[in-house]
Amino acid sequence: MTTDFKQAALDYHEFPTPGKISIALSKPADTAAHLALAYSPGVAEPVRAIAANPENAYRFTGKGNLVAVISDGSAILGLGDLGPLASKPVMEGKALLFKRFAGIDSVDIQVKSENPQAFIDTVARIADTFGGINLEDIKAPECFEIEKILIEQCDIPVFHDDQHGTAIVTAAGMLNALEIQGKLLSDARIVCLGAGAAAIACMKLLLSLGARRENLYLVDRQGVIRSDRGDLVSHKQAFVNDGGARTLLDAMQDADVFIGLSGGNLLTADALLAMAPKPIVFACSNPDPEIQPELAMSLRDDLILATGRSDYPNQVNNVLGFPFIFRGALDVRAARINEEMKIAAVEALRQLAKEPTPVEMLQAFNIDRLEFGPDYILPKPLDARLLGAVAGAVAKAAVDSGVARLPYPAHYPL
Amino acid sequence: MTTDFKQAALDYHEFPTPGKISIALSKPADTAAHLALAYSPGVAEPVRAIAANPENAYRFTGKGNLVAVISDGSAILGLGDLGPLASKPVMEGKALLFKRFAGIDSVDIQVKSENPQAFIDTVARIADTFGGINLEDIKAPECFEIEKILIEQCDIPVFHDDQHGTAIVTAAGMLNALEIQGKLLSDARIVCLGAGAAAIACMKLLLSLGARRENLYLVDRQGVIRSDRGDLVSHKQAFVNDGGARTLLDAMQDADVFIGLSGGNLLTADALLAMAPKPIVFACSNPDPEIQPELAMSLRDDLILATGRSDYPNQVNNVLGFPFIFRGALDVRAARINEEMKIAAVEALRQLAKEPTPVEMLQAFNIDRLEFGPDYILPKPLDARLLGAVAGAVAKAAVDSGVARLPYPAHYPL
Repeated sequence: MTTDFKQAALDYHEFPTPGKISIALSKPADTAAHLALAYSPGVAEPVRAIAANPENAYRFTGKGNLVAVISDGSAILGLGDLGPLASKPVMEGKALLFKRFAGIDSVDIQVKSENPQAFIDTVARIADTFGGINLEDIKAPECFEIEKILIEQCDIPVFHDDQHGTAIVTAAGMLNALEIQGKLLSDARIVCLGAGAAAIACMKLLLSLGARRENLYLVDRQGVIRSDRGDLVSHKQAFVNDGGARTLLDAMQDADVFIGLSGGNLLTADALLAMAPKPIVFACSNPDPEIQPELAMSLRDDLILATGRSDYPNQVNNVLGFPFIFRGALDVRAARINEEMKIAAVEALRQLAKEPTPVEMLQAFNIDRLEFGPDYILPKPLDARLLGAVAGAVAKAAVDSGVARLPYPAHYPL
Repeated sequence: MTTDFKQAALDYHEFPTPGKISIALSKPADTAAHLALAYSPGVAEPVRAIAANPENAYRFTGKGNLVAVISDGSAILGLGDLGPLASKPVMEGKALLFKRFAGIDSVDIQVKSENPQAFIDTVARIADTFGGINLEDIKAPECFEIEKILIEQCDIPVFHDDQHGTAIVTAAGMLNALEIQGKLLSDARIVCLGAGAAAIACMKLLLSLGARRENLYLVDRQGVIRSDRGDLVSHKQAFVNDGGARTLLDAMQDADVFIGLSGGNLLTADALLAMAPKPIVFACSNPDPEIQPELAMSLRDDLILATGRSDYPNQVNNVLGFPFIFRGALDVRAARINEEMKIAAVEALRQLAKEPTPVEMLQAFNIDRLEFGPDYILPKPLDARLLGAVAGAVAKAAVDSGVARLPYPAHYPL
């Protein structure tokens, strides 16, 4: 980031009022008559109705359209464990995106917890307030157990976006890139650099989509995850690969796919050149990708490259996922976000990238053409069709898989 | 409440969208350039700034204007312990009032806690998210310990409105009523029916304003709080009165003041007739006052009567207090809300009722005249001068008493 941009980002957050979100009244509250309905004495009626039947909270309060974005600040962006308060701009940003992209009211909560159990207890105790919970920026391996237990304890969707949001968007782009390169996921040799929450979730989702265990190479700072390493925590043990590769460069020999969820400039020219013909590189580290796009493209003209950045083609951006996944889940009051719903989101994103973009939208993007191909494997974040396409697909999958408590809404395309 | 009004209250809460508050963006988020500032990569800058200095959370996030309204639902309105979820309409209503009256962004949190310690732990762990915490509808005696410990553990204002908000507004009205009746608080025989959170806080505040211990009669369902009763929990023991009175009617003999914080129609005609000349009755139970206003006025024409209702004169309404008390506290970043600030709020409310109401405001109220006297002892909730008067006084008291971390803001009258 340039100094100018950094200052612009600080100014954006500070002026004219600090922060990015605020509360608005969704009902009139001008007169004494309004206030008598909104508060005393009228409010006693919805209270009684909810006490009689908890489901009435969805009728008479904002619960059904309210998602909490909750973090302990232990893995903020690529910056690490800076504590809960420092995560607040990120969480408020997520709340802004929920509203901006999917009309979901979202509030951020920072939790200062001594240990994972304290975090779990805290979130479980306040969960009824919300219609869904988006966990964010919680470090591995704690995040796995935290999410698992909270899903069990809560009857609303709990979703760790760093895991599943990243995995869904990555998988959608990956499947489209493989299609364009003429490759099959089941045959692809896949190297993932980074072994944190996002990497583990990506590998799991690719496996459930058809990737083969023996073709996956998970690589952390110490090299390929192998069973002869003495330092493996349990979430990594599920991904040991005892083929010959020990280093990133070993693993990259004839690799079809590289997924970087690690840090800037960790992918060398040698490693890129070692890949199979028609390779796919997802260099998702932000703001500095694992390899500079200009360098990568100059080394391999048969490459499909995606990054986390908006200033290059093929941006892998979580905002393509979480607002619409929660929108679909809330709209049918899903009890959780299951694998069927995640895969429906993957397929909806894939499909949307293949559909022709209306000329009106191209004009709004100030782009001449946008055609499914090496430079367009995922929809643009500002594509207004995302809401109906992804949320609709997720809602339908929730209904079809039996976790929905409401029928499929008429306003989505079938 | 009539059936029609009950239905109107339900409809208000349900349509066109459930609930009363929503999230709004306080910054532009239309273009990719905006989103780069609001989220990735720009958001890293405020994160780093807050990690370097936690006070920067007030510059770059909404924390400084954000109040959580938190309840366990154990004492909802006059309805009792209906659980956390059923309290949500009340808490959302409070959030609406915070925004409507004082521009404070407020979110409601319902806590499902096994015991008071679990509630305390939960609130303490999420407290950094907010600039202040408004506790609400928590039953006595747990509320006293909960508030005390949270004030110790948090470096932001924690305020149980059912206690202190009620006490502040009641005290302001009471002092003005005593002045009109030509009585002194230090001489007044005061009977309080009800011995819950609000009653205890009212008695404490009246004591600190000059009422005499031996003149206070706290009355619960079993009668006057006396030391020979075996059933007293500790918060009641501080208010034993071993003068001769055992029943409400005993206590009401020659009483100057009756404060009802109990339940509808518990004040009999006999008890009212037993009071001293020029009595003062605050029948604050809602929706049914401790005595019907028409009956009370027909029995005693020397009476000053206040109720919790908007359809009679002298409404004792917490909305006269909490929005402006928090506004003042937030504006100078007070570490807590201390006694000086509470008394400043009392005095500001008293004074505002004595000031002439601008003709433009009378027109807006659709009232011909409003003059300090038996039927006008407290400002009207919709009086637009409340914000400057009460918040300004609270902010000044915070600065003067040394709990403010910012100077007195220039926009308030000195």
